[in-house]
Amino acid sequence: MAAKRTTMKKAKATAKPRGSRVRSKPAPVTKLRNPDETRRRLLDAATKEFCDHGFHGARIDRIAARAGANKRLLYAYVGDKEQAYLQVLEQAYQEIRSGERMLNMERMSPEEGMRTLARFTFQHFQRHPNFIRLLIGENLNEARFLKRSAVIQDMHSPLVDQIRALLKRGETEGVFRKSVDPVQLYILIAALGFFYLSNRYTLSTIFGMDLMSSERLLAREEHIVALVMGYLAVDQASDMTHSKMKRVAGS
Amino acid sequence: MAAKRTTMKKAKATAKPRGSRVRSKPAPVTKLRNPDETRRRLLDAATKEFCDHGFHGARIDRIAARAGANKRLLYAYVGDKEQAYLQVLEQAYQEIRSGERMLNMERMSPEEGMRTLARFTFQHFQRHPNFIRLLIGENLNEARFLKRSAVIQDMHSPLVDQIRALLKRGETEGVFRKSVDPVQLYILIAALGFFYLSNRYTLSTIFGMDLMSSERLLAREEHIVALVMGYLAVDQASDMTHSKMKRVAGS
Repeated sequence: MAAKRTTMKKAKATAKPRGSRVRSKPAPVTKLRNPDETRRRLLDAATKEFCDHGFHGARIDRIAARAGANKRLLYAYVGDKEQAYLQVLEQAYQEIRSGERMLNMERMSPEEGMRTLARFTFQHFQRHPNFIRLLIGENLNEARFLKRSAVIQDMHSPLVDQIRALLKRGETEGVFRKSVDPVQLYILIAALGFFYLSNRYTLSTIFGMDLMSSERLLAREEHIVALVMGYLAVDQASDMTHSKMKRVAGS
Repeated sequence: MAAKRTTMKKAKATAKPRGSRVRSKPAPVTKLRNPDETRRRLLDAATKEFCDHGFHGARIDRIAARAGANKRLLYAYVGDKEQAYLQVLEQAYQEIRSGERMLNMERMSPEEGMRTLARFTFQHFQRHPNFIRLLIGENLNEARFLKRSAVIQDMHSPLVDQIRALLKRGETEGVFRKSVDPVQLYILIAALGFFYLSNRYTLSTIFGMDLMSSERLLAREEHIVALVMGYLAVDQASDMTHSKMKRVAGS
């Protein structure tokens, strides 16, 4: 949330001066100076609204007010409530996917690449609690809206390709075991960080400890890296377990 | 949901004959034949209502109607809305904890005990989608209600003790590595199953596959068992990864 707020402040700082605020006197859409900036500000406001109230509780007029805009501008730039919500979802996925691309894993050794991806994933979830809330909400909706996205699957093939390439190189170099499924591996990496954060309140309560201390968060990150690397390591398990893993990974 | 419904049907079947249903003419609370059964029926109805509508959307009169009871009976047996919700949460935790106790892990070898716990946890989550929904909802509430429970932490020390005992035996027998933290291990086991199920809708959508086919569920269970056993195995990782794991587990 803190990160979002900073983003919004920045957005406001670089927007038009107060006197010409769109709220008091909406400018014609075509004449707006910075349409990308306007759209981003509206989507940031929509993100906050959907995270705070869920899809059903969210209100279009509150989104416009949060963005210092009016409803006409909102409809022109992001469409109706369903369209706004889908764009918020797509943007949140886009953020994590472009973060992964910027890691430049293809320039690293396979092991370093995988460790970097595991750390980045956990850190991204920590920095973007709104992303976690959106995913929780959309799963409670049974992905009703995400299913309508025309871009979401295409957005994910580069990630799968990146992981597949790392796995292939690691296999060739003899540092990763064979036949690991890239999607299974990504679900593993995501699960280890997401659950810890999404369920931190109940876990902290039932076990009587603070999961969000910086010490425990760092320990958790090391734990995730160790688990992923242990899973990928060639010599990692007893024969029986190892053969089981192979079978599963290939399924 | 299917499991819950079956439970409710059974509850009705063993309840009083139609002519004396509490709805049409509520019996004085003290004279009810089977107070445990009545309380259970009310809590089952409350569970369904809280899972369908969340704490805030849930309504006391709908809970009473679902249970074929009236509000007076509901207040007498489970209290007000907050009290009902907390009891629903506690009951859901009680179910998984008593399931674990019934595994009799202490009679198994350490490895068999750990495999059994990992499988049971994933299977319990699969059989109890309402439990997952309740945990999601309570985390969105920041565990506001669970924190008020007088019993929840005591309910969890036997689980931690059970895992600690398994780890200790495994360490003594030389089949598990040293200094694994029982709570970290449980969070690992829970994370691997919970996230897969709680986020199955978005994951299935972004990766274009059905995560809930019986083949994939079985493969996932094997994957979880392999990961947990690989993590615990003495000889599992390269020296560097291994020393890191030790550090994390001991933190």
